[in-house]
Amino acid sequence: MAGSVAGPEIERLIQLLARLPGLGPRSARRAALHLIKKRDALMTPLTAALQVALDRIQVCKICGNIDSQNPCTVCTDPRRDPSIIVVVADVADLWALERANAVNGRYHVLGATLSPLDGVGPQDLTLDALVARAHETEVTEVVLALNATVDGQTTAHYITDLLQEAGVRVTRLAHGVPVGGELDYLDEGTLSAAMRQRTLF
Amino acid sequence: MAGSVAGPEIERLIQLLARLPGLGPRSARRAALHLIKKRDALMTPLTAALQVALDRIQVCKICGNIDSQNPCTVCTDPRRDPSIIVVVADVADLWALERANAVNGRYHVLGATLSPLDGVGPQDLTLDALVARAHETEVTEVVLALNATVDGQTTAHYITDLLQEAGVRVTRLAHGVPVGGELDYLDEGTLSAAMRQRTLF
Repeated sequence: MAGSVAGPEIERLIQLLARLPGLGPRSARRAALHLIKKRDALMTPLTAALQVALDRIQVCKICGNIDSQNPCTVCTDPRRDPSIIVVVADVADLWALERANAVNGRYHVLGATLSPLDGVGPQDLTLDALVARAHETEVTEVVLALNATVDGQTTAHYITDLLQEAGVRVTRLAHGVPVGGELDYLDEGTLSAAMRQRTLF
Repeated sequence: MAGSVAGPEIERLIQLLARLPGLGPRSARRAALHLIKKRDALMTPLTAALQVALDRIQVCKICGNIDSQNPCTVCTDPRRDPSIIVVVADVADLWALERANAVNGRYHVLGATLSPLDGVGPQDLTLDALVARAHETEVTEVVLALNATVDGQTTAHYITDLLQEAGVRVTRLAHGVPVGGELDYLDEGTLSAAMRQRTLF
């Protein structure tokens, strides 16, 4: 055991690093060693950055985004179109859409998608808050930017039903050929959808 | 950019996490989100563990191992055979040998292997300290536990020459079939070595 050689402090660090997604026990050990070797260049600033994040990061009380201000930068940005709410499952999806500069609306983070098999039900999602926001007069469209998986689509249908009384347009992302994608490698469902929803060139 | 959405604190955390071996920009983003979501269960203890490691971990002045005591646990362990010094390139190799419980000697961490192509020369390794240790009267054997790569073997030859005056037996790890390994997948060099060094059953 590394613990008996290098002391309990390092063993504890390795165990915690191994719980990060993408790091297993072996790569966590490598990461810990790397940190210790790059003490001034990496370990000290990383420790400080974690402490700053611990002190400052909060969940936005409006949309569920995470930010150092609350409400978050997106919710308080006056240049955002207040008529559009983009519903995402996770903050990671919000970040992905922002990186793509895909939409100028505001967001609503559900926190998860419905998944009966994993025991995730409607009460686990921020659905009440979404329904309340959809009823605000300035909101005219709710875009369901959810994964094109069974769970994502189940969630999309569920939300569409919930919002029937809200008087908003409920839309979803288009299916189609990914930019840069080769037809030969695409599944039949995507190809059929892309053909059905073909647009003028 | 996630930075514009989630604030500079998170962006900084992602950038630092991305410099860990095994994490790229994308998985660093995922790791940062995971940390923020698991604030109490992971982010707080990891920050504390890093701080403890920063405060306590040192490089052993005798062997180059890292530990919270100096000299390290291995060097100060009276049950270790003081006649054997096991030379490794890196602390990770020391840990691997300890996990395998492979040897009951003490270690010497070189810090690197000779690599003319990468500009690593003898002055970059802890060779003076090794030679001095090899001259101690209690030391009778130096085991070169170096990678079976060109750089590792170059280093092994270089050290063997250095230690000619020290009056110690210089040995190296055996080559052979890895335990659980299938002959069909082994290279010719390993197979020939395993055959040459065959032992009584």
